[in-house]
Amino acid sequence: MSKVKPLILITNDDGVSAPGLRALIDVMAEIGEIIVVAPDKPQSAMGHAITTNNTLYLNKLSKENDVITEYSCSGTPVDCVKLAVNEILKRKPDLCVSGVNHGSNSSINVIYSGTMSAAVEAGIEGIPAIGFSLLDFDWNADFETMKPFIRKITVETLENKLPQGVVLNVNFPKLTKENIKGIKICRQAKAMWVEKFDKRQTPQGRDYYWLAGEFVNQDKGEDTDEWALANGYVSVVPVQFDLTAYHATPLLNTWKWNE
Amino acid sequence: MSKVKPLILITNDDGVSAPGLRALIDVMAEIGEIIVVAPDKPQSAMGHAITTNNTLYLNKLSKENDVITEYSCSGTPVDCVKLAVNEILKRKPDLCVSGVNHGSNSSINVIYSGTMSAAVEAGIEGIPAIGFSLLDFDWNADFETMKPFIRKITVETLENKLPQGVVLNVNFPKLTKENIKGIKICRQAKAMWVEKFDKRQTPQGRDYYWLAGEFVNQDKGEDTDEWALANGYVSVVPVQFDLTAYHATPLLNTWKWNE
Repeated sequence: MSKVKPLILITNDDGVSAPGLRALIDVMAEIGEIIVVAPDKPQSAMGHAITTNNTLYLNKLSKENDVITEYSCSGTPVDCVKLAVNEILKRKPDLCVSGVNHGSNSSINVIYSGTMSAAVEAGIEGIPAIGFSLLDFDWNADFETMKPFIRKITVETLENKLPQGVVLNVNFPKLTKENIKGIKICRQAKAMWVEKFDKRQTPQGRDYYWLAGEFVNQDKGEDTDEWALANGYVSVVPVQFDLTAYHATPLLNTWKWNE
Repeated sequence: MSKVKPLILITNDDGVSAPGLRALIDVMAEIGEIIVVAPDKPQSAMGHAITTNNTLYLNKLSKENDVITEYSCSGTPVDCVKLAVNEILKRKPDLCVSGVNHGSNSSINVIYSGTMSAAVEAGIEGIPAIGFSLLDFDWNADFETMKPFIRKITVETLENKLPQGVVLNVNFPKLTKENIKGIKICRQAKAMWVEKFDKRQTPQGRDYYWLAGEFVNQDKGEDTDEWALANGYVSVVPVQFDLTAYHATPLLNTWKWNE
């Protein structure tokens, strides 16, 4: 790392008051100069949503002489990154970290995740980025155990250089320190949610639904994030936002599109 | 195609009353048995958001003897697909089509797009899927020109077989029929939005922002969707939802994660 402290943008999707965000702030405050811009309310499962049909508000939460500058934002995690980069930060940050999410963002969850979408948005804007998530939905989950791992992953990412167009999706198993075997580079497991909507009735007799479901991992590979997490590792998946399925192009070119 | 009419699920992100959806219904009604489940209000730029912290409502819009069964849904485009598959359809559909979006979903727009997220959600659930978009934001855009192309692309997709884990992102240039050169398989152009937030004040003097920006294509390749659209082609990009950046794995494995 250079002697100038790196500028680190911190965001999340559970909102500015989430304990997971506070844990991330603790670690980053030892590494760099930090700015927090996080949603003013929970924004889980917002995917890569942006606010185009509504106004956006920023609230400065920190005072003039506070060490850490903090803002809350009325928008989505992706809005937070866009506003931070364009309206708050004087220069492009050296790193954007998102999380620590209360709950898993492994496997297909990466695509629904506000935490990871914030990291991906930073990546699109050319900022090295990492999303951190813990496999524990509890608001009072234990984030202490993972702090040394967060520090290690952050320092490695700052010292080395993430390839252009790649951000990291880091998930932590819900384990004590002694039971974590290490950090493992993985691929995204092929898995999905099998929905079981919970159908109910309003007091007025109108049907409504709650989205509920069961996570089903169809992937038996031992190189996946699901395998790593189930076997005591911290999983790190390199994530890209060029969604082109290059392997499908030769086949598609044999179809009779223009006849 | 088999003699049994294919079952086609239709959705979008501009809402159930959008002319683009009506154009898609017109074409699909000639090809298959169709069910429409679309948002009850515009849901543009919702990305892959799902509704986990709120209730979901379905409204059946069609009557008992109507040829086309139509529902509106209070949720996001992804919620529409999940509810359709799990609560409305008797069997897994043979195809899901989303759109026609009023506005481009080429290049990086795929990641913000509710239209494409609905198609991707269908893909995750194992349903062949296509998202259609027109490079014209006008509510009264001309969707007639593209109908033969939509038909051709849909029939090709039904007759051939999309590889598992791949959905199609189709964009139409804003051109008359004579000026469209054909259909072209492309890759996603490397491009981004450069934000220019429009900062205003409420009547009470509080600052707020509108997200605004300029689309910047940094990609000079002639195999991209942006190139194809600028040169008079309908662009078709195969899109995947395994986001793993496999090319980055060897490099990341040289980092000192566990020292």
